[in-house]
Amino acid sequence: MGETQKNTKSKNRFNKNNGSVSVAKSAVNNLVSGGFNQKNPVEKLNKKQNTKNSTSKKKKTIRKITPEKSNSPIRIIPLGGLGEIGKNITVYEFEGDMILVDCGMSFPDEETPGIDAVIPDFTYILDNKDKVKGLIVTHGHEDHIGAIPYLLSSFNIPIYATRLTIGLIENKLSEHRLLSDAVLNVVKPGHSVKLGKFNVEFIHVNHSIPDAVGFAISCSAGTIVQTGDFKIDTTPIDDKVIDLARFAQLGKQGVLALLSDSTNAERPGFTPSERIVGESFAKLFRKAQGHRIIVATFSSNIHRIQQIIDEAHRCKRKVAVSGRSMINVVKMAAELKYLKVPSGILIDIDQIKNYASEKLVVITTGSQGEPLSALHRMAFSDHRQVEIIPGDMIIISATPIPGNEILVSRVVNELMKRGANVVYEKMYDVHVSGHACQEEQKLMLSIVKPKFFMPVHGEQKHLFKHRALAYTMGVKPENVIVAANGNVIEVSDSGIKNVGSVPSGRILVDGLGVGDVGSIVLRDRKHLADNGIIIVTVAIDSLTREVLSGPDVVSRGFVYVKESEELMEELRRVVLDVLESSRFSRAKDWNSIKTIIKDGVSKFLYQKTHRSPMILPVILEV
Amino acid sequence: MGETQKNTKSKNRFNKNNGSVSVAKSAVNNLVSGGFNQKNPVEKLNKKQNTKNSTSKKKKTIRKITPEKSNSPIRIIPLGGLGEIGKNITVYEFEGDMILVDCGMSFPDEETPGIDAVIPDFTYILDNKDKVKGLIVTHGHEDHIGAIPYLLSSFNIPIYATRLTIGLIENKLSEHRLLSDAVLNVVKPGHSVKLGKFNVEFIHVNHSIPDAVGFAISCSAGTIVQTGDFKIDTTPIDDKVIDLARFAQLGKQGVLALLSDSTNAERPGFTPSERIVGESFAKLFRKAQGHRIIVATFSSNIHRIQQIIDEAHRCKRKVAVSGRSMINVVKMAAELKYLKVPSGILIDIDQIKNYASEKLVVITTGSQGEPLSALHRMAFSDHRQVEIIPGDMIIISATPIPGNEILVSRVVNELMKRGANVVYEKMYDVHVSGHACQEEQKLMLSIVKPKFFMPVHGEQKHLFKHRALAYTMGVKPENVIVAANGNVIEVSDSGIKNVGSVPSGRILVDGLGVGDVGSIVLRDRKHLADNGIIIVTVAIDSLTREVLSGPDVVSRGFVYVKESEELMEELRRVVLDVLESSRFSRAKDWNSIKTIIKDGVSKFLYQKTHRSPMILPVILEV
Repeated sequence: MGETQKNTKSKNRFNKNNGSVSVAKSAVNNLVSGGFNQKNPVEKLNKKQNTKNSTSKKKKTIRKITPEKSNSPIRIIPLGGLGEIGKNITVYEFEGDMILVDCGMSFPDEETPGIDAVIPDFTYILDNKDKVKGLIVTHGHEDHIGAIPYLLSSFNIPIYATRLTIGLIENKLSEHRLLSDAVLNVVKPGHSVKLGKFNVEFIHVNHSIPDAVGFAISCSAGTIVQTGDFKIDTTPIDDKVIDLARFAQLGKQGVLALLSDSTNAERPGFTPSERIVGESFAKLFRKAQGHRIIVATFSSNIHRIQQIIDEAHRCKRKVAVSGRSMINVVKMAAELKYLKVPSGILIDIDQIKNYASEKLVVITTGSQGEPLSALHRMAFSDHRQVEIIPGDMIIISATPIPGNEILVSRVVNELMKRGANVVYEKMYDVHVSGHACQEEQKLMLSIVKPKFFMPVHGEQKHLFKHRALAYTMGVKPENVIVAANGNVIEVSDSGIKNVGSVPSGRILVDGLGVGDVGSIVLRDRKHLADNGIIIVTVAIDSLTREVLSGPDVVSRGFVYVKESEELMEELRRVVLDVLESSRFSRAKDWNSIKTIIKDGVSKFLYQKTHRSPMILPVILEV
Repeated sequence: MGETQKNTKSKNRFNKNNGSVSVAKSAVNNLVSGGFNQKNPVEKLNKKQNTKNSTSKKKKTIRKITPEKSNSPIRIIPLGGLGEIGKNITVYEFEGDMILVDCGMSFPDEETPGIDAVIPDFTYILDNKDKVKGLIVTHGHEDHIGAIPYLLSSFNIPIYATRLTIGLIENKLSEHRLLSDAVLNVVKPGHSVKLGKFNVEFIHVNHSIPDAVGFAISCSAGTIVQTGDFKIDTTPIDDKVIDLARFAQLGKQGVLALLSDSTNAERPGFTPSERIVGESFAKLFRKAQGHRIIVATFSSNIHRIQQIIDEAHRCKRKVAVSGRSMINVVKMAAELKYLKVPSGILIDIDQIKNYASEKLVVITTGSQGEPLSALHRMAFSDHRQVEIIPGDMIIISATPIPGNEILVSRVVNELMKRGANVVYEKMYDVHVSGHACQEEQKLMLSIVKPKFFMPVHGEQKHLFKHRALAYTMGVKPENVIVAANGNVIEVSDSGIKNVGSVPSGRILVDGLGVGDVGSIVLRDRKHLADNGIIIVTVAIDSLTREVLSGPDVVSRGFVYVKESEELMEELRRVVLDVLESSRFSRAKDWNSIKTIIKDGVSKFLYQKTHRSPMILPVILEV
């Protein structure tokens, strides 16, 4: 019973013949069910191991796993994803071996102006490089893979994920010129990998991206199930229902702890099946007869894209794709056969002018109203190929992520002004969530039956709500822990507790800079945004302290200077007065004089305008 | 049949004995129904008129209104409130006379950093001062009264509104030191005022603030009904149901046009009654036995506050009030008897330490997560009197306004971290909207039966949705107009059309400055927020062009300089190189040299950092 991963190092595409790289699913199920219940205590694993900077494959020593539970606790260290949406990353540690689950980013908000991405603090990982055996990834969303390039640039850790997820990681690493050295391993759902003292089984789940998995992470101290992002879809587009049987089997065998997705913990009921969106598309496509159809959605929601293509096919329409990420993902998903594209249906966006409107469907990015996205450009008449015309049917197949409501509304309003028929309401079921609602979360708890429970992936309110759900199911309060990023959670048969903390937090990425924008820079940016800046420059004789040139007053983001020349002139006089009086004052050094200028200008401007711009005095000694 | 308004000029409080200033409601109904249907063509109105800078009252000439419909059209000019939420203001114009309906502000968003308020462009009003007979106000929310001080500072127009609305306007004018000259007239719902060629009847409606009205605006060309913000609450807290009978009567008599509230046009069904929030409070107060209760809501939602006080009274708890606007409004509403406060129940917030937690209810501002609000300060341990303790029951009795979702979540998460039990979900019915949903909007259309329909108060999507609702009721497309701010809409028996435009738009208020922050300043603020600024200063001999001092490089919001000294040093060398080469180049004037410095520094920094800070070169000639 061998168990392997495929090395897709460098540009090697995946072997289409999977026979040689993966055991049959049943064998793997045997392996796992045999290896970690107590009836069949000893298991031998052969594993093709990829190591950094080497393509040679060497056999790993065979390890014995004893049926006796270890006394050592397992450590779970969330470095991100708790008390926040995004930036998911968790360290598992057992008897000196570590693995990482996910390595995501989060998006900047109004508190982080100008920032491109927010990534986890990798200090603890980099301090323990020699212990870390690998990174396993649940699925290909940015909040689970987005920080991988930043980790890989200082630590070339081998990565294990399903085929589509690896494809998305490849795209990302390629952009960062990190692909050639990366060690990427494709693992099929149902299969396992052995990473140091851990065995990790990949379990298929439903989510808003195909090929998503949860993990059963086992070591001699027990098994921990981490669901990843999941929902229960009994009629998914690819007919692959979440592997509830396997979760239930694990539950029967005994699960030490469950880490489960809390994102939708506030929502009662069940998340509807992705399939109902297809029904809405069918209705809306009929309604749009005689008009062009434009559908905006997330590029990673390949099942959604499949349903759009299917409906277009039924209506004998051609499909064009707009938006960089949409084009990339559609191309890759079609190559990897995650997307079934009827031949001849796809046309280049440049070709749409050659087709009648009523024969077209455009699939586009921009469902969140993002200012640089294709849909935004269409709405503001800034798209090279698509000009919105009256009668266009535009379907926004997504819900605004909190914080994006206004951006989306702005785009909807603009599209409507141009005469488009915009469908965005919930009443049409043009979107469903990818996350489990309360009843699904409870179902997961009920079949995994963990001894301990730790809600993950969510803000504080989601984690608490998920905890409350567990309480309603009879889970004892002492068996549930709501942790925070950086906590070191120790779990063993005897209990779960927080035993300390490691560095965690958010590292800001701005252009090429990683971590060089901190709280002072952000504070200044917010001050500049709210109030603007006034720069007072003066050249002074270093001996006599006489003013040789200036003071020059320049402002940005304060008032439009041409209309405020009088104010600026008064300001100059204020500075001159301050300088004159300081010449004979006790102020000896330039810094004190700068402070005096700053205070004088601030006071004057506040009196005149009730505003507090940043004041920056520059004194040049000549 | 006389009809009067009460002058509340200066600090004179309202006469509690209303007998002398208002006719009985029945008489007024007679007046209106008599005056504007064709059976009783001539109506005499006596009116106590307040003119600017004078308290003397003079009789107005009696005007004859002929039963023959005028051929002149009525002009409706929305200067705000269309294609946006907020900043509501509409001009009505007929045969040379004008009136204004509402004068609201809107709130800044991420597109307008540092701005305090957004107000309408008053150009058209100020250009026609002699024609404008008065400002009538539907209710006391900021988006309907917030811009009044800015209008009054250049045009002391008489204002007509209900008692509570006048009270809120007084507070506002007092803050702006404009109260002493203001001419404020209290009008009771059911009564009318005569303003030039217009007769305006005040019609009671339900909304999330008491004393809200709609208007029937009549002149010889016909009657226009403007609903104001409204909902239909058949069990309101003050037992005053919206005066549907009067709207229906007007409909029977014939309404030329209806302008109706579109805010909730996306929501199907009926908005629930305010009373169901009281039932939720009862449940939650029971649940909170033994703990302190803190309820956050809008200070203007006086019926909500009434229900909190009533429930506190039933539970024998004391009530303390926190937050400046909450304290002001509760005080005023109690004085004016809009709030019934059982004696002894209110205690000062400073006194809460003298009471057991379980005997307290705190009513607070901050339901939108506003960073300076009382609830936000409680959440972040920055409130002087209230420290959140485990077990506190906190009810956020509001829904986040679009754009505020993240702010509210942040507060909820913080409160939860402190062990509070936070109720904010919809499942508890702790908030209901103040606006009509689709069925109410349709009901209003069905009873007013206007010839023409113009949806108002809403973004483009709301206006279009409201229009679509009218279509479903059989209103002909040519009889509906979706207008934009600044449109001049002419309506007469023969049709409704847009005949031109007047200046409209948004004027930004920043500190004492009104309109001095425009698009250039905002663009600079956004650039500064996203990228920071680098200031390069150098003193140069004006003859030899030799560098006498500097270049000095200062940055703000770019990188933390102490960690980037090397970069700054390189930057200085780049500037020196540029200056050196420019000394012998064709660049003759300082502006060209500045441009050369700017370009050189930009290029260098982009290469090094992939960022584009604002570059500001300052050259001092010595």
